[in-house]
Amino acid sequence: MRQRHKPWADDFLKENSHIVIPESNLQKGKWKELFGNSNPIHVEIGTGKGQFITGMAEQFPNINFIGIEVVKSIVVNAAQKVIESGQKNIILLNEDANDLREFFAEHEIATIYLNFSDPWPKNRHEKRRLTYHTFLEQYKNVLMTNGELIFKTDNQGLFEYSLVSFSKFGMNFEEVNLDLHKLHDPENIMTEYEEKFSAKGQRIYRSRVTF
Amino acid sequence: MRQRHKPWADDFLKENSHIVIPESNLQKGKWKELFGNSNPIHVEIGTGKGQFITGMAEQFPNINFIGIEVVKSIVVNAAQKVIESGQKNIILLNEDANDLREFFAEHEIATIYLNFSDPWPKNRHEKRRLTYHTFLEQYKNVLMTNGELIFKTDNQGLFEYSLVSFSKFGMNFEEVNLDLHKLHDPENIMTEYEEKFSAKGQRIYRSRVTF
Repeated sequence: MRQRHKPWADDFLKENSHIVIPESNLQKGKWKELFGNSNPIHVEIGTGKGQFITGMAEQFPNINFIGIEVVKSIVVNAAQKVIESGQKNIILLNEDANDLREFFAEHEIATIYLNFSDPWPKNRHEKRRLTYHTFLEQYKNVLMTNGELIFKTDNQGLFEYSLVSFSKFGMNFEEVNLDLHKLHDPENIMTEYEEKFSAKGQRIYRSRVTF
Repeated sequence: MRQRHKPWADDFLKENSHIVIPESNLQKGKWKELFGNSNPIHVEIGTGKGQFITGMAEQFPNINFIGIEVVKSIVVNAAQKVIESGQKNIILLNEDANDLREFFAEHEIATIYLNFSDPWPKNRHEKRRLTYHTFLEQYKNVLMTNGELIFKTDNQGLFEYSLVSFSKFGMNFEEVNLDLHKLHDPENIMTEYEEKFSAKGQRIYRSRVTF
């Protein structure tokens, strides 16, 4: 997602450090304290402009949401959406989600969402795909027993790859949906990408898997 | 597949008992002897009019193929196709493949093909789907270690169900293909259904899994 440079972003993030949490590695194991309750914690990797996580937070007020987005000028958009929503059950991390174990203690998370992750279609980039086994290893570590990984994409190749990768890792498939928008699911909150691709008639795939 | 009654079918089958093997349960554990070699044996469940298995037998002369088809008036079509092909590495069984262990000994089979199996979409018919766990149990029994189950269908619901069923059974996914005809694969032999559905632009799904 190409974004204009936002010279005011640093000041904005400083003013909104209750939403975009700085030094988030220091919160490892203490997220419940930050939220002020012991509701389950759901994490989205690659939050983008925040439409999904804000929609989810509105739909599920008894779940705490953490959105991770590496691009500063984009996390700012997501933060603005969080402010507009008035929801207190979302925070954002402006971090590279390269290793979730930096930010979360073992079993601290109930659900992880991967939404429209970069497909990295070249074989030599396989290790960068967020469903490569080194990432699954991390997710397993930070997820609770029976915690779910929920993965949506429009990319056929990445979805095929990921199902095989989940299987090789010994994961359990709870659900596979090969055309999410064929039937209207009022509970499905769309990401910005999902809205765009689905409007073009492209299929959206979804899987729910556990370790 | 609705077929006209064929009064000559019984005579035809009697004359061609080297192709459509009667009392096939008596051959259990002895199929290699019948083929007269120790090439691997591949089994198709629901052979229909035989286009797939005949094409496969032509493409892979060093593999022995056994096609199972319950409908007598259809197995006759398949047998005619086998005769026309002149291939000696195919035989047919006019049987209900309800329990493969009736016909095959443990580990006697290298590969099982399920092609465009009846989707049985109603929940109460789940047990009849050929990827229900009771069938997987049978396949595991008759397949060699690392033997493959190769499954093709145009039915989205059946494919989704089957991936979950394979996973719950602890199977390993070797390949998942969500649009088999998107790229031309010269090695893919089409069934009659596949040809028809694919010509209509419908997606064909394929998975290769091992136990």
